Amino acid sequence: MLRQYLRVRDDTLALAASLSAEDQCVQSMPDASPTKWHLAHTTWFFETMLLRPFSPHYQVFNDQYHYLFNSYYESLGSRHPRPQRGLLTRPSADEVIEYRRYVDAAMQELIEHARGDAWPQLKPLLLLGLNHEQQHQELLLTDILHLLSCNPLLPAYRSGSDKDSLSPASISAAHGLTWLSHPGGTVGIGCAGTGDDDDFAFDNETPRHNVLLSPYRLADRLLTCGEYAEFILDGGYRQAGLWLSDGWATVQAQGWKAPAYWMAPDEVVAGIEGWEIFGLDGVRPLDPWAPVTNISFYEAAAYAEWAQARLPNEFEWEAAAGDPRMAQVTGHAWQWTRSSYDPYPGFRSAPGAVGEYNGKFMVGQLVLRGSSFATPPGHTRVTYRNFFPPNARWQFSGLRLARDNI
Amino acid sequence: MLRQYLRVRDDTLALAASLSAEDQCVQSMPDASPTKWHLAHTTWFFETMLLRPFSPHYQVFNDQYHYLFNSYYESLGSRHPRPQRGLLTRPSADEVIEYRRYVDAAMQELIEHARGDAWPQLKPLLLLGLNHEQQHQELLLTDILHLLSCNPLLPAYRSGSDKDSLSPASISAAHGLTWLSHPGGTVGIGCAGTGDDDDFAFDNETPRHNVLLSPYRLADRLLTCGEYAEFILDGGYRQAGLWLSDGWATVQAQGWKAPAYWMAPDEVVAGIEGWEIFGLDGVRPLDPWAPVTNISFYEAAAYAEWAQARLPNEFEWEAAAGDPRMAQVTGHAWQWTRSSYDPYPGFRSAPGAVGEYNGKFMVGQLVLRGSSFATPPGHTRVTYRNFFPPNARWQFSGLRLARDNI
Amino acid sequence: MLRQYLRVRDDTLALAASLSAEDQCVQSMPDASPTKWHLAHTTWFFETMLLRPFSPHYQVFNDQYHYLFNSYYESLGSRHPRPQRGLLTRPSADEVIEYRRYVDAAMQELIEHARGDAWPQLKPLLLLGLNHEQQHQELLLTDILHLLSCNPLLPAYRSGSDKDSLSPASISAAHGLTWLSHPGGTVGIGCAGTGDDDDFAFDNETPRHNVLLSPYRLADRLLTCGEYAEFILDGGYRQAGLWLSDGWATVQAQGWKAPAYWMAPDEVVAGIEGWEIFGLDGVRPLDPWAPVTNISFYEAAAYAEWAQARLPNEFEWEAAAGDPRMAQVTGHAWQWTRSSYDPYPGFRSAPGAVGEYNGKFMVGQLVLRGSSFATPPGHTRVTYRNFFPPNARWQFSGLRLARDNI
Amino acid sequence: MLRQYLRVRDDTLALAASLSAEDQCVQSMPDASPTKWHLAHTTWFFETMLLRPFSPHYQVFNDQYHYLFNSYYESLGSRHPRPQRGLLTRPSADEVIEYRRYVDAAMQELIEHARGDAWPQLKPLLLLGLNHEQQHQELLLTDILHLLSCNPLLPAYRSGSDKDSLSPASISAAHGLTWLSHPGGTVGIGCAGTGDDDDFAFDNETPRHNVLLSPYRLADRLLTCGEYAEFILDGGYRQAGLWLSDGWATVQAQGWKAPAYWMAPDEVVAGIEGWEIFGLDGVRPLDPWAPVTNISFYEAAAYAEWAQARLPNEFEWEAAAGDPRMAQVTGHAWQWTRSSYDPYPGFRSAPGAVGEYNGKFMVGQLVLRGSSFATPPGHTRVTYRNFFPPNARWQFSGLRLARDNI
Repeated sequence: MLRQYLRVRDDTLALAASLSAEDQCVQSMPDASPTKWHLAHTTWFFETMLLRPFSPHYQVFNDQYHYLFNSYYESLGSRHPRPQRGLLTRPSADEVIEYRRYVDAAMQELIEHARGDAWPQLKPLLLLGLNHEQQHQELLLTDILHLLSCNPLLPAYRSGSDKDSLSPASISAAHGLTWLSHPGGTVGIGCAGTGDDDDFAFDNETPRHNVLLSPYRLADRLLTCGEYAEFILDGGYRQAGLWLSDGWATVQAQGWKAPAYWMAPDEVVAGIEGWEIFGLDGVRPLDPWAPVTNISFYEAAAYAEWAQARLPNEFEWEAAAGDPRMAQVTGHAWQWTRSSYDPYPGFRSAPGAVGEYNGKFMVGQLVLRGSSFATPPGHTRVTYRNFFPPNARWQFSGLRLARDNI
Repeated sequence: MLRQYLRVRDDTLALAASLSAEDQCVQSMPDASPTKWHLAHTTWFFETMLLRPFSPHYQVFNDQYHYLFNSYYESLGSRHPRPQRGLLTRPSADEVIEYRRYVDAAMQELIEHARGDAWPQLKPLLLLGLNHEQQHQELLLTDILHLLSCNPLLPAYRSGSDKDSLSPASISAAHGLTWLSHPGGTVGIGCAGTGDDDDFAFDNETPRHNVLLSPYRLADRLLTCGEYAEFILDGGYRQAGLWLSDGWATVQAQGWKAPAYWMAPDEVVAGIEGWEIFGLDGVRPLDPWAPVTNISFYEAAAYAEWAQARLPNEFEWEAAAGDPRMAQVTGHAWQWTRSSYDPYPGFRSAPGAVGEYNGKFMVGQLVLRGSSFATPPGHTRVTYRNFFPPNARWQFSGLRLARDNI
Repeated sequence: MLRQYLRVRDDTLALAASLSAEDQCVQSMPDASPTKWHLAHTTWFFETMLLRPFSPHYQVFNDQYHYLFNSYYESLGSRHPRPQRGLLTRPSADEVIEYRRYVDAAMQELIEHARGDAWPQLKPLLLLGLNHEQQHQELLLTDILHLLSCNPLLPAYRSGSDKDSLSPASISAAHGLTWLSHPGGTVGIGCAGTGDDDDFAFDNETPRHNVLLSPYRLADRLLTCGEYAEFILDGGYRQAGLWLSDGWATVQAQGWKAPAYWMAPDEVVAGIEGWEIFGLDGVRPLDPWAPVTNISFYEAAAYAEWAQARLPNEFEWEAAAGDPRMAQVTGHAWQWTRSSYDPYPGFRSAPGAVGEYNGKFMVGQLVLRGSSFATPPGHTRVTYRNFFPPNARWQFSGLRLARDNI
Repeated sequence: MLRQYLRVRDDTLALAASLSAEDQCVQSMPDASPTKWHLAHTTWFFETMLLRPFSPHYQVFNDQYHYLFNSYYESLGSRHPRPQRGLLTRPSADEVIEYRRYVDAAMQELIEHARGDAWPQLKPLLLLGLNHEQQHQELLLTDILHLLSCNPLLPAYRSGSDKDSLSPASISAAHGLTWLSHPGGTVGIGCAGTGDDDDFAFDNETPRHNVLLSPYRLADRLLTCGEYAEFILDGGYRQAGLWLSDGWATVQAQGWKAPAYWMAPDEVVAGIEGWEIFGLDGVRPLDPWAPVTNISFYEAAAYAEWAQARLPNEFEWEAAAGDPRMAQVTGHAWQWTRSSYDPYPGFRSAPGAVGEYNGKFMVGQLVLRGSSFATPPGHTRVTYRNFFPPNARWQFSGLRLARDNI
């Protein structure tokens, strides 16, 4: 467990390594947090959920950090307003690193010397903390990309030899779309519990329960940028009839004409020629075989309507996820589903602060399944439920098409 | 059919009869429309969906009304902005009545002389138009109540002998809450189609399909104002832990301390003494045995949390609706469910303008079931799906509690 | 005095006579008030400032009207929020007429039977009330024009034989612009006091004081629509360099391309062909010799910059107003000056509520001089200081050019 | 001149020296700019106004900086939006220092080798650039103070031995307020021109002209914090009658209860006990003999009303500024006047980009006179016209009372 702890913690630091203190400090919109805040908040999580209750001699690093780095836990008191996280030029990036080291040392002590009878309480919280930190690793990347995109210089997050790992990988150009049939029927959905390490899960994946599905078909791969570009070139962003009402209102209010970070050529010509996409590797020509990312649910649903298909619901996705013919299930792009983020039957939040982790967000959002190229390896599951509001575009969110099987 | 048509149309006029031309003209918020607009828009619906396509010699009453009274049909062209409906002092209330008479005469002609082979096309649209008008009859009441509530004089919509029919009826004080058990299992949900008159349904209730339910319990009656008042007096509006995150943000931003239209006494004393509620009959003392209405989904969910219960999902509600022990199923208050307004498996919108009726709103809203004291008699069904955003409070929306059966 | 009182009061009613109760009720923007509100507020002014303090036996018409129809007098208690004046469908238009009659009867009694020793106190307040009502007569017209302009039907405020009186009169096409020289030097500005009826003045015109002016020149007539159209056709609304910084920001935020109520032809051709203007008489072709109206200070200043001229300051305007060669001094269009609305040296507000009439608005506004075609005859003076924020366009505001005399 | 150039440029760097790269990057509100942006923009000014036109072989440091660091010069093309200046984590603080060095070297070259016939053109622009940079030196301080005040840790801008220089100095406790009488009459105001170095002035101080003043009295010193505290303790922020209408609306909308950066004690006791003020030196107890700063024009005017006095207009201030009995004329706090920022008679903006420096802001602002403890020594004059909107509080703005002499 200690090795796992140290590895996850190091991974976070590695993601911040290419950024200056300035890059790490600024917040570009209320939804996105500064890198430094991610580094501190994940540390605060271990301090608050583990060290304070379980380490009797632990001395808090700095009392004021409890106010500064609490994200949204109402039961833990008031906190620094989310839209103002970028105003915290102090503590400095260096002080936050020091805070991490201090907490890591205490956590090492706790993990190594935990009494056997404390372990059943400790372990789920430790696993929660590590999974929490992994979620922030991905957010760190989506958030810094948004910040850098606001800079007219369009600086790359990372450049040089490591480049390839931070763009979504292309699928083979020969991979035409195949529809995989699923017979439907009663399928088991979700996890029995959040319990032990072999099958850690968030509480929103529980309890496991049966769902009845009609027969359906699912695309064997993700939608590509090339396919999405056809929708744009066919005037998809100008046809109200393709859009949900709220989606159309958003298109008009925001002036959307393409996914986030897509840059049209100065003079539009036929096809995708001249289109570029800004990503963690900087500005690159649109790759027609890469999965489309950074689209909202509204755009995903409008595309599906245009393609005379639909989005799968989250149960259809989960039931088919084990099919060996399904490509790009995880590790490429989060996949919007046509499922609102509602609680599973029998779901109850845990008591205390950790109960605020997921349950209180179960309204007004949509479920995404799978994981993206920016998700830490090993962090996802077929039962994993990611969720964002329908207008969110700064995540690496794409889509996989579905159809009724009739 | 003609009798039915004329009755529905007359009912709408009767609802406007007690209002002055001024009352009918003003719009108090973007969500609510003026009475006059309701009178005109429902007429426009018949003119546009029936007379224009099916009455070859029909002369449009006024070309500009097509722009003024289109609500949200993108496929029918641009329209007067929703938040500006109250600026239309012209056409006058009298001119709108004249418009209604003109269209009614043409509709009478159409219905009486429709050729037999046209009827299969006409009839569903006629039924849709009548159900559409009934929906607006209820909206007319909720909207005028909101307008009158903005006037410091707090004028009653209607006074005198008819009073009783426009307040939610109390349940007997002896009616304690009983939990009705349901075994769960596979249940049939929704309607097969929108087809013929014996079973008119909106498209959002289709297709009929099976759903698997866990065992559950449902309250045999609605939540009362007296019960809800206990939640207030216990500090329910001050305890973040009871609320969904968006709900808590709304409570704080809006300063909510009670349902809409509830008026606290100048000096709060123990219990419900001194509390009053503004309604269509004017200001009245809080009736502890009347069903609570005019609460948002957020409040319904917070109350349920406080009561260690939950809201039913819409399938649980529908499956139990036929139980003869269930009181107040319809005709008292709409009942918030814990179901987001998602499409049923296999749902497809109809082609053309009528396809915009329901489908494009299927995101960001919650389902309500049943009907209220303000719903026209005969307008609802156990499969009926009403829907509003989670913060909406100007509808006659209440709740029925549910629990897991474990 | 009584005759004067009754005439002014009747004039107000006459202005409302062509409007329906609906027209009189609605508010189209926070700056503009409904006709009915003007009718009631001016009545409230007499009730509050004269009848309550000076008529011992006067019974208030309706206690709640004190809250509803107080405009902005903080010392008289809280009041109905300005942006919600249009929500008052009650009291009805008829009830407001009744309120006027009731107060008029009491005022008649007061004026006829006022004791001689009370008259010195009464008379200035009576004059203030009448001048106040005359101001609202003009506002009634500017406000109803704004409301009607929001209706896609573009209904005329008044039609038929009286038409001509409600459009700004044209000047002779032969009237080229002549620059009138003024030697400058010490000039007397303003009024000595607000005292007796021969020289009623508002407090903001006092005290009279001397101002030192440099030599300057003033246009002998107002700017015409034809001249302003040249500015538009030369791209005036697209050249940042002509505009004050706040003005340019407003042009871009509001998308201004012409004065308020100007309607460009569908296809722009050379010159003013096809341009129309919506006014109290409805839509009419642009008259090149009519004074331009409904422009903001920003537009007036930008035009002057484009014309290599400037706006006069209010002292230059006042010093030249008596020159018999100056045409269109009053009765055509209010004339923006390059003077911020600051207090005159030695200005003190009166004690009590009437002290709130003018003084507290002396920041952030610009002075306009003269009067418009919609100003009641006899209401203005050469010392009269009208004032509006620099972005206001719904008044009948135009300009007269000035130049340094060098 | 070169020595002067280098000294001013070094002074700017010295002000940034105590700040981390993070501190220098963040923007806390649209009105305030990041330190790094100030460092770059002042450099851009020299590059754009001097090096580009006058140094034939000058190579621009970075083409994109022209877009990033143009503040508001419309004639120089589009620019990075003001509210997004804090999103520029690149160029880094180090790169901006490099930019400064590069431009400084080129400027040194230009100054040393300027041909004699170029000097008459160069010199005024050089002086303008230096005065411009000095203005930004003060803004750098007011802006960083605002940023630090948004941090719950309330870090000091600078600590240690230099402290005293960055708080407003107290006046002797024995210095009671004396009213200095001025006879009024014709006084000369402003500067003849912006010309040569003995009397550099901004264009808004020109042309010199005569103004006629009534007799008046002026306080011989600034208002103190102790005096202002009495206004607060007397309920000044709760009495509508003391405030201009816009001021009262602002008090209510913003919840103002004291000047910016004043911190009330947890429990309010009589007098100033327990009050603290956050400043560049961190949190310090309120010093009753220090001049009040960080108040808006609205607050200054309300205080004056409460004190049965008034604010001086800018001409009264200027005419009395030379009186040897006037204390704290400059170097303590900017002094709000009762003068709107209007152009002087005969004022004309210079042609070209430098003409945008002052003239286009002459509406909606108020004039402040004097200078503050944060103004660079030598930067002000008795004719100097500073200006800010009436609600601005983040400047070191205070007041000096005036009264009519009657």
